Formats: sequence, structure tokens, C-alpha cells
Amino acid sequence: MTLTPSAIAEIVSVERIVGDESKPLRGFASLTEAHNTDLSFFSDPRYENHLYTTKAGAVLLPLDFQAKRPLPSYLTQIYVRRPDQAFYTLVQKYKAPPLPEWGREPNSFIHPSAEIPEDTYIGAFAYIGERVKIGSQARIFPFAYVGAEVEIGEGTVVYPHAVIMPRTKIGSWCIIHPGAVIGADGFGFYKGDTRLYERIPQIGRVVIEDEVEVGANTCVDRATLGETRLGKGVKLDNLIQIAHNVQIGPHTAIAAQTGIAGSTTIGAYCRLGGQVGIADHLSIAEGSSIAAQSGVSRSITTPGKSWRGAPAQEVRQQLLMEALMRRLPELYPKLREIEKIIRHP
Amino acid sequence: MTLTPSAIAEIVSVERIVGDESKPLRGFASLTEAHNTDLSFFSDPRYENHLYTTKAGAVLLPLDFQAKRPLPSYLTQIYVRRPDQAFYTLVQKYKAPPLPEWGREPNSFIHPSAEIPEDTYIGAFAYIGERVKIGSQARIFPFAYVGAEVEIGEGTVVYPHAVIMPRTKIGSWCIIHPGAVIGADGFGFYKGDTRLYERIPQIGRVVIEDEVEVGANTCVDRATLGETRLGKGVKLDNLIQIAHNVQIGPHTAIAAQTGIAGSTTIGAYCRLGGQVGIADHLSIAEGSSIAAQSGVSRSITTPGKSWRGAPAQEVRQQLLMEALMRRLPELYPKLREIEKIIRHP
Amino acid sequence: MTLTPSAIAEIVSVERIVGDESKPLRGFASLTEAHNTDLSFFSDPRYENHLYTTKAGAVLLPLDFQAKRPLPSYLTQIYVRRPDQAFYTLVQKYKAPPLPEWGREPNSFIHPSAEIPEDTYIGAFAYIGERVKIGSQARIFPFAYVGAEVEIGEGTVVYPHAVIMPRTKIGSWCIIHPGAVIGADGFGFYKGDTRLYERIPQIGRVVIEDEVEVGANTCVDRATLGETRLGKGVKLDNLIQIAHNVQIGPHTAIAAQTGIAGSTTIGAYCRLGGQVGIADHLSIAEGSSIAAQSGVSRSITTPGKSWRGAPAQEVRQQLLMEALMRRLPELYPKLREIEKIIRHP
Repeated sequence: MTLTPSAIAEIVSVERIVGDESKPLRGFASLTEAHNTDLSFFSDPRYENHLYTTKAGAVLLPLDFQAKRPLPSYLTQIYVRRPDQAFYTLVQKYKAPPLPEWGREPNSFIHPSAEIPEDTYIGAFAYIGERVKIGSQARIFPFAYVGAEVEIGEGTVVYPHAVIMPRTKIGSWCIIHPGAVIGADGFGFYKGDTRLYERIPQIGRVVIEDEVEVGANTCVDRATLGETRLGKGVKLDNLIQIAHNVQIGPHTAIAAQTGIAGSTTIGAYCRLGGQVGIADHLSIAEGSSIAAQSGVSRSITTPGKSWRGAPAQEVRQQLLMEALMRRLPELYPKLREIEKIIRHP
Repeated sequence: MTLTPSAIAEIVSVERIVGDESKPLRGFASLTEAHNTDLSFFSDPRYENHLYTTKAGAVLLPLDFQAKRPLPSYLTQIYVRRPDQAFYTLVQKYKAPPLPEWGREPNSFIHPSAEIPEDTYIGAFAYIGERVKIGSQARIFPFAYVGAEVEIGEGTVVYPHAVIMPRTKIGSWCIIHPGAVIGADGFGFYKGDTRLYERIPQIGRVVIEDEVEVGANTCVDRATLGETRLGKGVKLDNLIQIAHNVQIGPHTAIAAQTGIAGSTTIGAYCRLGGQVGIADHLSIAEGSSIAAQSGVSRSITTPGKSWRGAPAQEVRQQLLMEALMRRLPELYPKLREIEKIIRHP
Repeated sequence: MTLTPSAIAEIVSVERIVGDESKPLRGFASLTEAHNTDLSFFSDPRYENHLYTTKAGAVLLPLDFQAKRPLPSYLTQIYVRRPDQAFYTLVQKYKAPPLPEWGREPNSFIHPSAEIPEDTYIGAFAYIGERVKIGSQARIFPFAYVGAEVEIGEGTVVYPHAVIMPRTKIGSWCIIHPGAVIGADGFGFYKGDTRLYERIPQIGRVVIEDEVEVGANTCVDRATLGETRLGKGVKLDNLIQIAHNVQIGPHTAIAAQTGIAGSTTIGAYCRLGGQVGIADHLSIAEGSSIAAQSGVSRSITTPGKSWRGAPAQEVRQQLLMEALMRRLPELYPKLREIEKIIRHP
């Protein structure tokens, strides 16, 4: 690609350009890594220092930006409403690797009862089971397993080695990353007459609404009865465990290696850090924010609060407690001193 | 399906029925989710309230059940010895999705030296290596990798994308869930003369006894020498790490994302919560119960106790410690007060 | 195999042999598990007791070994400079299962534009995409997915079900264990005008230097821009999460289930225990040692120190704090006693 500041103004809405409007730009990079043919962007005030030292050829700047010092003379300034958005739009248009064309690679296994429109991609060694329904513009990569009666919506991408077990329903414009396992049996047993653990048959399913992402090697178990559900716009990172009958509200984002135990409900617009554990049968209020490595063992009923620690408390309480814990080494000598004074005054 | 209370009495042992014996039942659901054509069950006294408000058409009740209030008039009561067991038996019989028929789908790779009985299922794109032996009624799903000299017992199910590395031995009636990796090399290195980490060759294997479940994307590493072993009836949830040379005793159940480090032995009938970590070369006594997110760095020698925390302590000690930690914010001011008093009495 | 102490002396450098030089040895085992036809070794002084009770037929001993008690009479002693190294060299030579021969199994998918030397192994159902370059002596196992423009160096092994997403670069003599996912999209979103989470296009890649191991079901995400990089000799255990733009210095080893958040840099020669979490945008100094289950939320700037806890502190401080936490139950009564005394002296 070769792009110029003036060509950028034809793609995204630019208020004004300061500097060389015809400077050739060949790549995209962060302020600290950019070379003189790269476009960069500035939007987080914490990194303003990088602006004065960047080697980038051009930078996208917010409309209200006021430089505290002179910017490098070789740096073309392109003022836009939202530099991050403009930058990612350009990256997507010029550099994102193309998805595969519609069509079917050889050596796939497609059951004759499956319904698959023409405008889809089915990779080599993809497995499409009985009565599967796939929406138009969907892409099923090599080694994807799509079990019987699965429904996959329009534009959804199923990456290599993802496993979609039977009767799962996936909405439109979702992305299922490599190695994700959706709809495996939940971990449920009852005490039998002779065996300690008899399997509880897991006859429910997983329902994934539109615009959801499921990260690499993440597991979402099917429900015992009923549904395990990921709401619209939910984003799951890698290596997450979602147990049977969990419900996750719309637009909740969860970082890697977090685990949600069975039948727990997470509200909409929550944010969970990495390696969080949430116990079973809880309810987490809308808009909760839970710090990495926290352990939640009680329901959270007040919406919109931040939590931290194991067992989790409100973040300020927990930070205070952590600070005081680190002061324990000074507390004990003080106590001994006090004892000495009162016993031998 | 259509089932009636009187038809149920022909399948499971029913003591008596109160209400409409010929009510048509078409599904299975929990008390809170059931509609008027669903069968439900009641066995956990904590949920008795749901009995008085359920919309279910019929409910399985324990023989000694005494209603505290009148049950809904439309609710047929079916009294059985164990409602949970009766319910799951009926679910399994009427609703569990059928496993695939015996036979071989096209496009599998089966080494001519493999021994596979007729009454097995081998999915498309399954890979069966040299000298593999598979028991009758076993099911090997698409994309399963079964390495050289693996033995798989009668009735065992290997789900899509499971990887069984060479020389692993799996017993009868086991379930290997999607994406599980059994028999990958352990993580072992020694300091070489020129390299910091030289690989220790991992020539041991994994042995899995009968009736074991290994969860989705769970890893069980082969032994360095000798065996990594999962005892009879062991149940592993998803995303668990079992390192080389670990031994897990019969009927131990482990929840998701827990990790057991190398050469540790876990006794029989233990229960480990999710995200637990157990250090290497330890021994955990029979019947130990370890709470979620605990970290165990010393052997547990007394059997049958409950543990919690990181580092783990007996649960009562740990809960007391946690409670006192949360009281630290009141302790420090108190201490300052005391100091004030004794210094300026 | 049948080996004798004198035959061993032809393979590894032996200083002297005490006992039967022609004793037939058929296997390798640890001191505690060995039978009378097994070779064992002794190098860790903590296990010296096992030497006096072992049933092994022969043992490799360090040159400076001085027995405190008489060794068993049937135990042939073979003195070498480094018993562990000698033992593993022999194990590798006599017992390590052979890797597959060069050649191509049927049913692989190889894009005509891929460059693959003759002296490589390509398993059944391997997928090799457009313009892939594979080095000589590389082995690509069944169900490996090797995306477009991936480069794989000489002698590298890609085990079954590993996923190498497009444009990843892997060096020489690496091992990618089963189910590992390398180069999936990073977890990055920005606030859109209408959607809370718009995807940030992930156009960077993963670069893996020589002699790296990536464990089973471990995930290494591609960079947003630029590179996610694993330095030479890095060893990753199973089920690890390496987020986008992470840099890991040479010869750093990380145990299972640890997660490193986005853009964090880990120095060379670090050792991270299992289930550790490291927050994003941090820098961890060279030679740091971080205990299992620690949580690191600030950069570590002093090299070569040991850290523990969540939030992590230097190990001695943390151990002191943990010890004092366990003494809280005795602190509170003491405080009450003091209060009593000063208020009612």
C-alpha cells in the first residue's frame, strides 16, 4: 500500500492537515515503533511524550490537541475527531489479511442434509454434520467440527480446530477462535446406588447471540437442561471456562483464564480481569468490574461497583486491607513494645 | 416423546401418584423453568419454595416429603425413593442425544496394523496409528488423534479433536472430551553443558483406568519414566493441567482450571475445586477436600479434612484468618489509641 | 535393548565401574521404582537414602560420591562426571520413541505454493497453506494447521492439532506441542460510536526464535501491530496464555496455566511458576523468579530477585507477611487483653 495524508482524508473524516499532504505512508505503527513512512496515532494523554520523539511520518491527532512543545518538523499532523477509530479503520482497510474467498476446499466432510449457502467458505477437513444450517458469508476453517443440528448465523467465522458440539446455536457476525470448544458436556454427577459419580445427562445446549467472540481454547459447556447463554456482544478471551447453565449478559468482556462455575449469571456490561474465579449459582450485577485473580464466592447485588481480592471485596476496602497486611511486620514489634510498657511501666 | 405419570411408573420404581396419572409430559425442566407439559423433580430442601410456585405438570418427590403448604392443584405428584436418580434415568432414556451408530465414516486414516472391532464408530478424519487396539463399542469421533500403540477400552468415547499420544492406555467406559491432550511430553529439563535447558526425554506413558472422564482442553502429560495415572472413576473438568508422573486415586473429582504439578500423588475420594494449584512432589491424603483457588505447597497427611487458601490451611483456621484480615482496618486505629493512652495516660 | 555397564562406557564418559561390568540392563528407572535389570542414577543429595534401598541393577554416580553406608552388594556403581546427563543421554539413545520417518502420509492438504524439502514428515490431515516455507528435518503431525505465509525452521516439530495462524515465524529445533494455538488474534477492542467493543484489527504476528517449546493447548496471540516474540530457548508449559505484543527474553521458563497480559516484557533467564498472572504493559527484569500463583501488577526493575504473593513482593517479605497473617488469631485476644489492662489497670 501507499497512502498519503490527503488520500486518508478521502477515507476518514479529516478536519485539517498540517505539514506535507502528499507524504508517502507505507505502514502503521505505534508512536514508539514507527519509522518515517509509517502512520501513527495519538489518543491517550499518558503517552503524549512519545509525540515529541516519534519517528513517524504522520500522526492522527484529536481536534482539541494542543502541543506543549514543538512537534517534530517531519511529522505531518492529521486532525480527526477520533484518532484511534480513524487509525483502526485505515488499518482494517489496508493491512488486515483478507479472509478466504467463498468456496469449498477439497476434502471437507459435509453431510447431505446440511444447508449451506453459496457465499460461504468451507475449508479443507472441515466437518459439517447432519441438519447443520449455516448463514451466508459465514467462514468455516479447516478442522472445524460442526456437530449435528448446529445453527451458525450470517458472517460468523469459525477458526481452525474449533469444536461446535451438536445443537449449539451461534448468532451472526460472531468469531470463534482456534481450539475453542462450545457445547461439551457440563461437569455434573449425582451419587448413584453403586457409583459415587453417575453422570447427569447434559441435554441442554449453548446459545450464542450476535457479535460474540470466543477466544482460543476457551470452553463453553452445554446446559444440563435449558441453555448456557452468551449475550449479544460478549467478548471472551483465551482459555476461559464457562460452565453449564451460565448466563452472560450483553456486552460483558472477560479476560483470559477466568472461570465461571455452573448456573452463575453475569449481568450486562461487566468487565472481568484474567484468572478470576466465580463460584456457582451466583448472580453478578450489571456493570460490575472484577480485578484480575479475584475470587467471587457471593452474589454481587449492587450494580456498577469494582471488586478485588479473594474473597472479593469492594476495591477500596480490599486495597486498604492489602496495604495493612503489608504493614503487619511493623505491627507485631509495636505490640510487643506496648506490652512491655504496660507490664513494666 | 410423550410420557405420562403412569408410564413413568413402568420405567422407574414409583411408590404412589397423587393427581392426574395420564397427564401428557413432553419435556424435562427444573422447577423454576418448567412449563405445564414438563416433568420436574425435587430433592434439595433448599429449593422447597420453588415447589409451591412451579408451573411443572408433574414432579418427582421423595417418599418422606411432607408439604408445608398446599402444592399447586395442577401438579401431579410422583413419589419415588430417589427423585434425582429417577429424573436423570428418564432424561437419559428419552432425551439424551443418540451416540453415532457403529461404522466408519469416509476419510478416516486407519493404520492397517490397528485392531478395531466391528461394533465401534470411527468418525471422518479420525487418525488411528500403528498397532492401536480399540475395544468394542468404543466411539472415536472426527479429528481424534490416536497415536501408535494406544489401547482404548470397551465403550470408551473419544470426542472430536482429542489427542491421545502414543502408548497411552485408556480403560473401559471412559469419556475423553473435545480438545483434551493425553500423553504430551512432560515439562522436564536439565542443565546441559552449553544449554540452560536440555530436554529430559519423556519415555513414560499415561494410564487411565475405567470410568474416567477427562474434560475439554484438559492436559494429562506422560511420565518421564513410569506412569502418570488416573485411577478408576476419576472425573476431571475442563482446562486442567496434570503434570508428568502425577498419580490420582480412584473416585477423585477435580473442577476446571486446576493444576497438579509433577510427581504429586492425590489420594482416592478427594474433591478439588476450580483453579486450585498443587505443588510438585506432594502427597494429598485420601478424602481431602480443597476449596477453589487454593494453593497447596505442603503434603496433606491427615485424611478427610477440608482445606482452603494459599498457602492452604484447614478451612476453619483459614476462614478465621480471612475474617480477621478484613478487620485489620479497625485494628490499626485501635492500636494508635492504645499507644496514645499508654504514652500520655 | 540390552545394555551392560561396560557398553555404557562406550557411549558416555565413565571414570570407573565398581561391580559386575557385564550385568544385563534392560530398562531405565528412578531409584525407588527400579528393578534388578534397570539402570538408575543418583545426583540429588536429598534422595541419598534411596541409594541404600534401591533394587536397581546399576546406578550412575557422581565422581565425588562418598557412600555413608555400604551400598547394596548387587548394585553395580558407574562413576561419571554428571549422572543426570549421562542417564538422559542413554534414555534418549535407547528408549525415546522414534520420530516418524521423512515422507508424506496420504490425505494431507498442501498448497502448491508451499516450499517443503524432501527430508520432512507431513502427517495425514496436515494442512499447509499458501506460500508456507518449511525447513528440512521438520515434522508436521496430523491435524496440524499451518496458515498462509508461515515459516517453520529446520528440525522443528509441530505436534497434532497445533494451530499456526498465518504469517507466524517459528525458528529451528522448536517443539510445538499438541493443541497449542499460535498467532490467534489478540483481545483488543476500542469503543465505537455505536458498539461498546469494536475490534482492533490484529495485523501483527508471532515470532518464535530457535529451540523454543510451546506446551499443549497453550495460546500465543499475534501482535496488534509489530510482533509478539518468544526469545531463543524459551520453554512454555501447558495451558499458558501469552497475550498480544508480549516479549519474552531468551531462556525464560514458564510453568503451566500462567498468563501474561498484553504488551508486557519478560526479561531473559526468568523462571515463572504455575498459575502466575502478570498484568499488561509491565517490564520484568532479567533473572526474576516468580513463585506459583503470584500476581504481578507492577514492573520489576531489579534483576535476579525472587517474588511471591498477590500482589507480589520479594519472597522474604511475603513469607514474613504470610506467617504473621497466620498469627492474627492470637493477635486479637492479646489486643483485647492489653485494652483491658490499660482501661482498668
